[in-house]
Amino acid sequence: MALVVQKYGGTSVGDPDRIRNVARRAVETANAGNRVVVCVSAMAGETDGLVALAAELGGSSPSQREYDVLVSTGEQKTVALLSMAIHQLGHDAQSLLGWQMGLRTDSAHGRARIGEIECRRIHAVLDAGAVCVIAGFQGVDDEGDITTLGRGGSDTSAVAVACALEADVCEIYTDVDGVFTTDPRIVPEAKKLEQVSYEEMLEMASLGAKVLQVRSVKFAMRYGTPIHVRSSFNSSEGTWVTREEDVMEKLVVSGVAYNRNEAKITLRTVKDRPGAAARLFTPISDAGIVVDMIVQNLSIDGSTDMTFTVPVGDFAKALELAQSAAAEIGVGSAEGDENIAKISIVGLGMKDHAGVAAQMFRVLADEGINIQLITTSEIKISVVVEEKYTELAVRALHAAFVDAGAAEPVEET
Amino acid sequence: MALVVQKYGGTSVGDPDRIRNVARRAVETANAGNRVVVCVSAMAGETDGLVALAAELGGSSPSQREYDVLVSTGEQKTVALLSMAIHQLGHDAQSLLGWQMGLRTDSAHGRARIGEIECRRIHAVLDAGAVCVIAGFQGVDDEGDITTLGRGGSDTSAVAVACALEADVCEIYTDVDGVFTTDPRIVPEAKKLEQVSYEEMLEMASLGAKVLQVRSVKFAMRYGTPIHVRSSFNSSEGTWVTREEDVMEKLVVSGVAYNRNEAKITLRTVKDRPGAAARLFTPISDAGIVVDMIVQNLSIDGSTDMTFTVPVGDFAKALELAQSAAAEIGVGSAEGDENIAKISIVGLGMKDHAGVAAQMFRVLADEGINIQLITTSEIKISVVVEEKYTELAVRALHAAFVDAGAAEPVEET
Repeated sequence: MALVVQKYGGTSVGDPDRIRNVARRAVETANAGNRVVVCVSAMAGETDGLVALAAELGGSSPSQREYDVLVSTGEQKTVALLSMAIHQLGHDAQSLLGWQMGLRTDSAHGRARIGEIECRRIHAVLDAGAVCVIAGFQGVDDEGDITTLGRGGSDTSAVAVACALEADVCEIYTDVDGVFTTDPRIVPEAKKLEQVSYEEMLEMASLGAKVLQVRSVKFAMRYGTPIHVRSSFNSSEGTWVTREEDVMEKLVVSGVAYNRNEAKITLRTVKDRPGAAARLFTPISDAGIVVDMIVQNLSIDGSTDMTFTVPVGDFAKALELAQSAAAEIGVGSAEGDENIAKISIVGLGMKDHAGVAAQMFRVLADEGINIQLITTSEIKISVVVEEKYTELAVRALHAAFVDAGAAEPVEET
Repeated sequence: MALVVQKYGGTSVGDPDRIRNVARRAVETANAGNRVVVCVSAMAGETDGLVALAAELGGSSPSQREYDVLVSTGEQKTVALLSMAIHQLGHDAQSLLGWQMGLRTDSAHGRARIGEIECRRIHAVLDAGAVCVIAGFQGVDDEGDITTLGRGGSDTSAVAVACALEADVCEIYTDVDGVFTTDPRIVPEAKKLEQVSYEEMLEMASLGAKVLQVRSVKFAMRYGTPIHVRSSFNSSEGTWVTREEDVMEKLVVSGVAYNRNEAKITLRTVKDRPGAAARLFTPISDAGIVVDMIVQNLSIDGSTDMTFTVPVGDFAKALELAQSAAAEIGVGSAEGDENIAKISIVGLGMKDHAGVAAQMFRVLADEGINIQLITTSEIKISVVVEEKYTELAVRALHAAFVDAGAAEPVEET
């Protein structure tokens, strides 16, 4: 008897028929002899309606505490309705909200971080032979106030609960068949991956592959809980996200990711002295802006160029802060560019395989694409290019690395 | 500094503008130097939408536990939105749900009874100078499950919290100006009562005057908490519901009530022996049917007639049970009639005033209205008549008792 946590997003529970479909899957899984926990999001569209009401009554910055009270009703509706639908199929089920399942968080309303999960009530429901239907996205803080984990937090809820329960698998149901080697809208030949490591998934998720939230992958990685990303519309095997040592075939490049939602800011001829970077990035961090890439070249003649990227939505604010820092540091000015895209290749195999970077740059050069920035990690190489080259770059890299041999096991070099 | 509990129903918070209106009233009350608790219902229409979803996914008898999880989202939305609207007016506010304010109930989902109310968090919010916005209609049982008090339970929540807090007043805001001497749709001359005792209010509420829930009046009576029923659309004084000894002018008849939603069932020539009534009413009570009037005449020749009334919705079931009991007791048959109305006059003064009953029967006789049943209490006389006479009877009794002298203090006789 396995313990299975299933997570269904807003589209999968978007109307009564879809809720009934989810109920059927949960009951099938239970009838196959498993203990089943189902974690659900708000019905698609529900949250948008609540956000609009908050905007109307709470203005531009409604109280985050009350906002969480409001939006958490979305998942509350779904868990009750799904439990009823499971009952209609003749199986027992019981819903638990964030505070009822003891999903404790800090008090950062709207973006709370999970602390401890008391599994007592979940176990009690499972022990009684019922499907346990839990509300994603929400928790409770030490004051007894409702908190939410931020948009997409239902993935995190499901994986965190799966980790706390030491579940055999956390199934993430979505509207695609699994994790693909790249975006099929750009490359129709994109293939579904059978397996991918947490590390690769993290690089791909944070680079814009929207299948799984980064936070949820980090949770699963820490506890070694396998994630199975699969479609809620069929029963095909999807993609297993698992430990590196459990990945059977370590591909040189398992995927090509892209992200058009960043902007870059460059400070030229920064005096290369201690404290310049701190002076630049402290106010940006204080403003809650997440900086992604940071690139600084070797100093020439005691001055250097420094470039970094931020989400497009934070570009104006970040540029303003950078310009004020530039004036203080004694740099002419900070310049920015929103029309960029970050293109990355990701693969466990590349750390044992020389020449991947060189080949990537050659592929892009052959297409006449100029590379503006480069950063690398053990299992990822990212470049920033002009935004208009996004599709061309993704297709060329996919053809060169994935179609032409990514399915082959890595040769040790 | 007074402690004021205000309760607003679904119509009063039916859209964003009305929620802003409620926010203004709450802030005005707070700015006048009061500690303010606001108890709200779900926005009008919200509950109906949730009930429809429950019917679609849960069938004809959805799990009451899950039903409570579902419908309690209605009030949860309102408390968050109202708190935001109060913030927009520059005043602090904090929402509390049933489980957060410690409104403990038994586990009778959908019709839970209030046990204890832990006021710790409400006091903490008030001590911090904020308006405390509480969700009506909902509580939490000893398992930590959400319960609801049944439709209209928001009145009960508000009054129960007012009692627990020893509030100076519980203001019930509604879409009418107060409690009237009778239904103004039938008698345009109906007058607003300035004061009415709990006992009179109870008789009027249970007889069909829909302004205040019976349970909430019982709560207020037990604790002596004054209720002020008033309009949410103006700032006129409404009707104070208070202790008998605090009612300044004890009217002979303070109101004329009617109820068309009952049906009567009669068993003829019941053998007058011990146990017959028990045999009849036990299965009816077991079926959860609430019997209102029970009338049995003196026995003649060892047999008697017995008549009782039940809600129209339970008529078919009650008649079936009565017929089966009749067969067993040895009565020919049970007969029923749905086309009846109960008309009552209510007044503290009638207990000291002879001849009220005789005058009532004379007024009805003068209009040619036949009286089918009569029951009396200390402060109420009720008759059952053919339903088509409802308006005529109400108008005649209002003219005779209220227009012609109810405003006069009682003369001791």
